[in-house]
Amino acid sequence: MGVDPGLTRCGVGVVEGGLGTQLKLIAVGVIRTPADLDHAHRLLRIHDGLEEWRENTHPDAIAVEKVFAQHNRNTVTGTAQAAGMAMMIAARHGLPVALHTPSEVKAAISGSGRADKAQVGHMVARVLRLSAPPTPADAADAVALAICQLWRGGATNRLEAAVAAQRRGRPTPRSWKDLAR
Amino acid sequence: MGVDPGLTRCGVGVVEGGLGTQLKLIAVGVIRTPADLDHAHRLLRIHDGLEEWRENTHPDAIAVEKVFAQHNRNTVTGTAQAAGMAMMIAARHGLPVALHTPSEVKAAISGSGRADKAQVGHMVARVLRLSAPPTPADAADAVALAICQLWRGGATNRLEAAVAAQRRGRPTPRSWKDLAR
Repeated sequence: MGVDPGLTRCGVGVVEGGLGTQLKLIAVGVIRTPADLDHAHRLLRIHDGLEEWRENTHPDAIAVEKVFAQHNRNTVTGTAQAAGMAMMIAARHGLPVALHTPSEVKAAISGSGRADKAQVGHMVARVLRLSAPPTPADAADAVALAICQLWRGGATNRLEAAVAAQRRGRPTPRSWKDLAR
Repeated sequence: MGVDPGLTRCGVGVVEGGLGTQLKLIAVGVIRTPADLDHAHRLLRIHDGLEEWRENTHPDAIAVEKVFAQHNRNTVTGTAQAAGMAMMIAARHGLPVALHTPSEVKAAISGSGRADKAQVGHMVARVLRLSAPPTPADAADAVALAICQLWRGGATNRLEAAVAAQRRGRPTPRSWKDLAR
C-alpha cells in the first residue's frame, strides 16, 4: 500500500505482485478533508481513512512518501503529520514501513528521477496495464509508491532491519531469510 | 492537558483550575522513546502514551505547543508528527485543541516572551506552589502550556470556534456562551 501523504488530499494505492511478476492494481483513491474543518479533525479523518483502507485491503507493507521539511513550508506540517499517521498505523499492525523520496519513486517507475507527473501517471498505467493513469495525481503517486516498494522496497526493508538490529546490539541475522516476516 | 511534543521526549502536564482560582498540578511526566527504535514504532508509543495520559487524567482540553517548520529542521518532522498525535486524540474524544507558540506560553506564565527555561520552570513551581520546578524541562514546558491554556486558552478557543463557524457558513453564535462546550 502506497501513501502519498497530505492533509487536503492523501493518495492511497494498493498493488499486488512482486519483482518479475505482472503487477495488479487492487485499489486506488484519495482521502480528502475539507479546508474549513479544524486541523485536529482533519488529522483524525486522515487517520481513520487510512485505517479503513488497511482493513479493507490487508496490505503486507506500507510505503510512504518521504517528507522534506525544507519544501513547501506552509503545508509541510500537515503533510508530515499525515505521513506520521500512515507510519503509526503500520507499526500498530506489525507492517513494515518504507519511506521513498519522490526521486526514488520516479526513478523506479520511469527510469528518471526527474520525471514529471504526466510521465509517472503514464508509466503507472503501463506497468499495471490500465487504460488511463489513475486520477488525481495524488492517487497516481500513491500507486507509483506501491510499485516502487514492490520493485525495490524489499531490499531496503531488509537492509534497514539489519541496521536496526545491529544498533539494538542484537546479532545480525545469518541470512536475509531470518529477517523475512 | 499540555503537550510539549517530541519524538525522544514528549512532555505532558495536567493542571486543574481556571482564571482567578488556585491552579493545581494533577500529573506531570514525559513519554520517552528510544532513539534506536524505528520511527513508526516511536510514533506509535507517543500516540499510545498520550492516549493513556488522556484516559487516566480526563482532561477537558488539550493544549499543544505550536511547531514551526523553519526551526530545528532535523527534528521538526518527528515533533510535528507527535503534535499531530496529540491533536488527533483530542479530536477523537471531542476535546478542544489549542496551539500555543513558545513565546505565548512564556509570556503567559512569566510576563516575558523571551523567558528562558529556568525562568519558566521557576514560574511553574510558583504558580502551582511546588517546592521545585518539574523536571526535565519538557515536563515543565508541558505544565506551562496547560497553565497558559487555562489562563488565556478559553478566549482563543471561543474565538477560533466563531471563526470556524463563520467559515463553514454557519451563523455566528449570539453570545460566547453558545460556544462553550
